Amino acid sequence: MAKIESVSPLAPVGGFPDLPIIDGVTFSSLEAGVRYTGRTDVMLAELCPGSVVAGTFTTSSTRSAAVLDCQKKLGSDASGGAAIFVNSGNSNAFTGKSGLEAVGKITEAISSSLGINENRIFTSSTGVIGEPLKWERITTKIDALKAGLQPDGITGAAKAIMTTDTFAKGASAEVTVGGEKIKIAGIAKGSGMIAPDMATMLVYIFTDAKIAQSVLQDLVSRATNTTFNCITVDSDTSTSDTLIAAATGCTSAPEILAGTPEANNFFTALQSVMLELSHLVVKDGEGATKFVEVQVTGASSDADARKIASSIANSPLVKTAIAGEDPNWGRVVMAVGKSGAAADRDLLSIRFGDVLVAENGWVSPNYSEEAAASYMKNDHIILRVDIGLGASQCTMWTCDLTHGYITINADYRS
Amino acid sequence: MAKIESVSPLAPVGGFPDLPIIDGVTFSSLEAGVRYTGRTDVMLAELCPGSVVAGTFTTSSTRSAAVLDCQKKLGSDASGGAAIFVNSGNSNAFTGKSGLEAVGKITEAISSSLGINENRIFTSSTGVIGEPLKWERITTKIDALKAGLQPDGITGAAKAIMTTDTFAKGASAEVTVGGEKIKIAGIAKGSGMIAPDMATMLVYIFTDAKIAQSVLQDLVSRATNTTFNCITVDSDTSTSDTLIAAATGCTSAPEILAGTPEANNFFTALQSVMLELSHLVVKDGEGATKFVEVQVTGASSDADARKIASSIANSPLVKTAIAGEDPNWGRVVMAVGKSGAAADRDLLSIRFGDVLVAENGWVSPNYSEEAAASYMKNDHIILRVDIGLGASQCTMWTCDLTHGYITINADYRS
Repeated sequence: MAKIESVSPLAPVGGFPDLPIIDGVTFSSLEAGVRYTGRTDVMLAELCPGSVVAGTFTTSSTRSAAVLDCQKKLGSDASGGAAIFVNSGNSNAFTGKSGLEAVGKITEAISSSLGINENRIFTSSTGVIGEPLKWERITTKIDALKAGLQPDGITGAAKAIMTTDTFAKGASAEVTVGGEKIKIAGIAKGSGMIAPDMATMLVYIFTDAKIAQSVLQDLVSRATNTTFNCITVDSDTSTSDTLIAAATGCTSAPEILAGTPEANNFFTALQSVMLELSHLVVKDGEGATKFVEVQVTGASSDADARKIASSIANSPLVKTAIAGEDPNWGRVVMAVGKSGAAADRDLLSIRFGDVLVAENGWVSPNYSEEAAASYMKNDHIILRVDIGLGASQCTMWTCDLTHGYITINADYRS
Repeated sequence: MAKIESVSPLAPVGGFPDLPIIDGVTFSSLEAGVRYTGRTDVMLAELCPGSVVAGTFTTSSTRSAAVLDCQKKLGSDASGGAAIFVNSGNSNAFTGKSGLEAVGKITEAISSSLGINENRIFTSSTGVIGEPLKWERITTKIDALKAGLQPDGITGAAKAIMTTDTFAKGASAEVTVGGEKIKIAGIAKGSGMIAPDMATMLVYIFTDAKIAQSVLQDLVSRATNTTFNCITVDSDTSTSDTLIAAATGCTSAPEILAGTPEANNFFTALQSVMLELSHLVVKDGEGATKFVEVQVTGASSDADARKIASSIANSPLVKTAIAGEDPNWGRVVMAVGKSGAAADRDLLSIRFGDVLVAENGWVSPNYSEEAAASYMKNDHIILRVDIGLGASQCTMWTCDLTHGYITINADYRS
């Protein structure tokens, strides 16, 4: 792996946020030496009996053993508690039959140490693909992880799951239901191999809400669609993408029932946590120097809006132009054109921030290259494209494509 | 535009090839100062009466005025001769109504100077998008271009159409029909904004074959599918992609009729010229240091084979690994997985050249990292992926992704 010593220039100024304690969850992390040395690389979260677990996962046809294992366990009996374990350094993906064996050894060890049914042990692995996971390095540390479990251990957990990330990522929200507070806290990792149309990377969200598994799953799936499924760093999709949301039910607020105003309020809070985490992943995009919001409006259909936003957000030529602080709207036109979605050159309008650059099939008569060039110096670039054909819209988030990306990825493994 | 002083390390050792004279065609090129200074930037080819013209074009919904104009003229009456004009420096794309006006002014001037119907004047423009084409700089040079027309001017023409290209591209072939030779000579430009599923870039092919327009069009469309539609530099699709093939009928060989063995022989020769030109475009890919052939076999369908090959050939993580001479087959697994095509992890096999790296869902027991790392030092990398599900296959060609690409594109326009 290329050593990246410096933190992303887009990292939050205040560092890792103060996340609230979520009743019913404890966290632990330590150094197991899976691959890295001198840093933590495993985390464990224990969830109290009754905790329900929902999740969304990569749709890759070559997804990892841990992903396959989690997917089948989501809705299992929640009465006896649950645990989430994550290691970084090795993704245990494309490791043949030994992959599933490693997952079995780890879940077995956690199950026996914590006294929780194996069916309720959810694991994730992130890091290099195709190398055997040395599971003994992990199973020998489970008792030590158990001994370290603390209600306020989430910051350590956020750090232990990092790979090429340059900063740990966390977000939280609160919502009041029946006069009582429900708290939500989440952590994420991700920097490269990030593309929409899946869950994304590793994300763990904890809440003390009382909520049925099926209701939580529905809200998580819907929120994924406008958050993690709307980000891209490099158009490449991981084999390990996992988002797990766990609700302990420890709040004194009443249960959240499907289709109620309370469910809507909870959804809004959940979505805000997921949106913030997804943005943090983009802001730590490999080599990123600009955070880019692509707003597509006026498309003929939701599918077309997403196609166009994705085509722009994934275009190497658009992303290198933004890296060069060049308001090169011609490349945006190119990306709209190649998307396969319905578009009419003469109805397009393109804005960088509030600067109208193109309309009616050409550069705007009032376009000021100076104003546009000055806007491009911002860290946060909003690229607005109106297709002029309908009412559908989609917003995606990406970063620029820089020398840093090449440096990180041209010798990641060697 | 970033100045790239050095020629691509993948450029042909012998320089521009000796292309045969094609009876019935003359070429001219000169400096018109459209955008560049100190180099030629316009070319004209005049075709004798009876010449038929076929072509394939970008499918972009924002394609340029010249592309739209060429598309409607292809099958028009060939009795009165034809001409092909190309300028570099400005693509005349997304230039609103003024785009079509510029095409009109240029074709009108050529028509009047050469005495050829406007319907038979095919033009292309390549370069920056969205700036008005200063057509007067071109129309004032038409008589000088006419005066310079020469049967052996094709090398000059190949140079005049270059933009970020670091070398001029040409290829030729011969085929014997009825004991008489038919000659084919082609030129191309292209370096960035190159992606499959369209014609690609600018390509002009000339032959003295006697052939009906509909037969030539059919052969050109078929050959495009396995040549220019199988290359990618950066997954971005130009708004100006144009391939024009002109047959003068000046050979003494008999006419090529559809469905005959002669048509097959001619097709093979035509395809070889198109394949060579398409490879030269990849070898001049922006920043390229490796020429990469992605061979996918064993897919469930032709569409799936193409999806997988395209997913691998466009993956920034695969391409940066190749730049770093890293046999990172895990990233190949990732690209297969995200393609959306049917794949079974445990049936995949992956080879770098002849080095078997992965099979049966894991690294091969005989895999030698040393042998693979040594293979990656080659200029020409063959990446072979067998899906193990069916009999469909697809080969695509691409290049690596390097710092050179970022340097060229992060300030192309500023």
